[in-house]
Amino acid sequence: MSARVTVRTRVHRFDATGEVSARADRLAGEEPLEIRLDGEEFTVAMRTPGHDVELVHGLLLAEAIITRRADVREIDFASGLGPDGSRNYNVARVRLDPGVHERRPPTRRQVYTSSACGICGTASIEAVEKQSAHPVEPPAPGRPLIDPAALLRLPERLGAEQSVFDATGGVHAAALFRVPGDGRPAEDPAAGRTTAAGTCPAGPAEPELLVVREDVGRHNAVDKVIGWALAADLLPLHRTILQVSGRASFELVQKAAMAGIPVLSAVSAPSALAVDLARDTGLTVVGFNRGRTFNAYSCTERIGPAAPPR
Amino acid sequence: MSARVTVRTRVHRFDATGEVSARADRLAGEEPLEIRLDGEEFTVAMRTPGHDVELVHGLLLAEAIITRRADVREIDFASGLGPDGSRNYNVARVRLDPGVHERRPPTRRQVYTSSACGICGTASIEAVEKQSAHPVEPPAPGRPLIDPAALLRLPERLGAEQSVFDATGGVHAAALFRVPGDGRPAEDPAAGRTTAAGTCPAGPAEPELLVVREDVGRHNAVDKVIGWALAADLLPLHRTILQVSGRASFELVQKAAMAGIPVLSAVSAPSALAVDLARDTGLTVVGFNRGRTFNAYSCTERIGPAAPPR
Repeated sequence: MSARVTVRTRVHRFDATGEVSARADRLAGEEPLEIRLDGEEFTVAMRTPGHDVELVHGLLLAEAIITRRADVREIDFASGLGPDGSRNYNVARVRLDPGVHERRPPTRRQVYTSSACGICGTASIEAVEKQSAHPVEPPAPGRPLIDPAALLRLPERLGAEQSVFDATGGVHAAALFRVPGDGRPAEDPAAGRTTAAGTCPAGPAEPELLVVREDVGRHNAVDKVIGWALAADLLPLHRTILQVSGRASFELVQKAAMAGIPVLSAVSAPSALAVDLARDTGLTVVGFNRGRTFNAYSCTERIGPAAPPR
Repeated sequence: MSARVTVRTRVHRFDATGEVSARADRLAGEEPLEIRLDGEEFTVAMRTPGHDVELVHGLLLAEAIITRRADVREIDFASGLGPDGSRNYNVARVRLDPGVHERRPPTRRQVYTSSACGICGTASIEAVEKQSAHPVEPPAPGRPLIDPAALLRLPERLGAEQSVFDATGGVHAAALFRVPGDGRPAEDPAAGRTTAAGTCPAGPAEPELLVVREDVGRHNAVDKVIGWALAADLLPLHRTILQVSGRASFELVQKAAMAGIPVLSAVSAPSALAVDLARDTGLTVVGFNRGRTFNAYSCTERIGPAAPPR
């Protein structure tokens, strides 16, 4: 783990009696990343350093600047200098494919604005619906994408990969899982799960972990995950589930919708506008996914065993 | 509680066996608030509706646009219209005192930019140090502001006031506490605490809860709390403690520093840059304030019993 992902510090631990002990501790790194598009200032994001190429890709996708890997010609981090003159890689100079400028309207920075670009939620939702180059696929009737037991395991599988959280207790995480096959076990035996009793064809396949990212910012963790997929040319992310460690806000649903992700699962609550957007874009939002139950707020057809229970 | 602070919805609860129950639930409201300054677009914030006058005051203070109540002449919410033509109060037209324009540089919106306005953390920190009209008072040697036991009680006192969280499980909260007196119990007996054994002059007074605000956005909850204080002409907030329900990010320390708040206490971890900024602005940052201990990362002199333990 890089010295900038976590940072050593000294801390004083107090208890109620006033007893104090000094100890070494680690904090989550947080530094600004300035993003410039073809020489123009675009935005500054406070982020945990690392996976910055992915962060830039993900942020530009969410803001509807780019839609595919080929839209980014080059990202140059060499011009960021710290106060002592050494490189700190905190400036990303992005060279876009010339075709991108022809497609997109001539705007300055859009962060915040595009995720809440109207006067009311409806306007924002319409903007997202119009903008996505990778719309979410509608659910296949009678063929759920993921079974409830597998979905309940995702937070724990995400947690097992949270190395920065383990060191600092202070970051958010996001993970992308892919469901193999197409959910039809009879035609795709490899998608079945093997149990003590042999292959179990009753449910969709166990999702495969593709990538986990951590960041002090919830949005950044998701941008890094989706940016990873975009940089690997995996969009649209049709048979995937995005698991996040915190809440499901409007902006996280927006980011998922821009990448074609059909299921967003959160450990905490969604907001009202997040659920509205999910319903309008056909995305399944799951909240309070912890312990033995979860809540599904939209498009619940994607959840269930492949064969109806007897 | 307004119908827009929490929103009714239907939800399906699943367990691992695929058992599903439908139920009514409440979600935290989240709507965009467009802020215009003297006719110019400034920013759009995704927020839980309610206490929007305070939110605008707090945001403008944090962004160094205003420094006191008199800087805002008028805020008009009447022009925000929903899709059906009814008022939704989602546009705030702010009329600033003409003197504000003379003081501040001619910038467009600054959100993100001013909180991370440089190429590196150092530049950001310098910007905050220069900007604050209400610098944090240095700690008084040998006279702590708050004792550890009282500080440990603040998260619970905050939690007891979280009505939106109780209804939805999906919002952040911030509270402002004021420590009465000046921490010298011998000269200010009213500041002492009464226990079973009588008045206890050994520690600083129990902090008094001034205000609690909840929001889907952590930053908004803090902006609403500080905006409340600004609108009540209480700045600088010298003898106060800001308790937040989540992490202590760079931006929360910045907001506290702009209001002169000496202590920021968080239930979760601070980031590295938050601690750097706190050390440079002389602010006490407390993290992991839950249960029987907390960690102090900067300016620990403010914590302790008023009289040294025997």
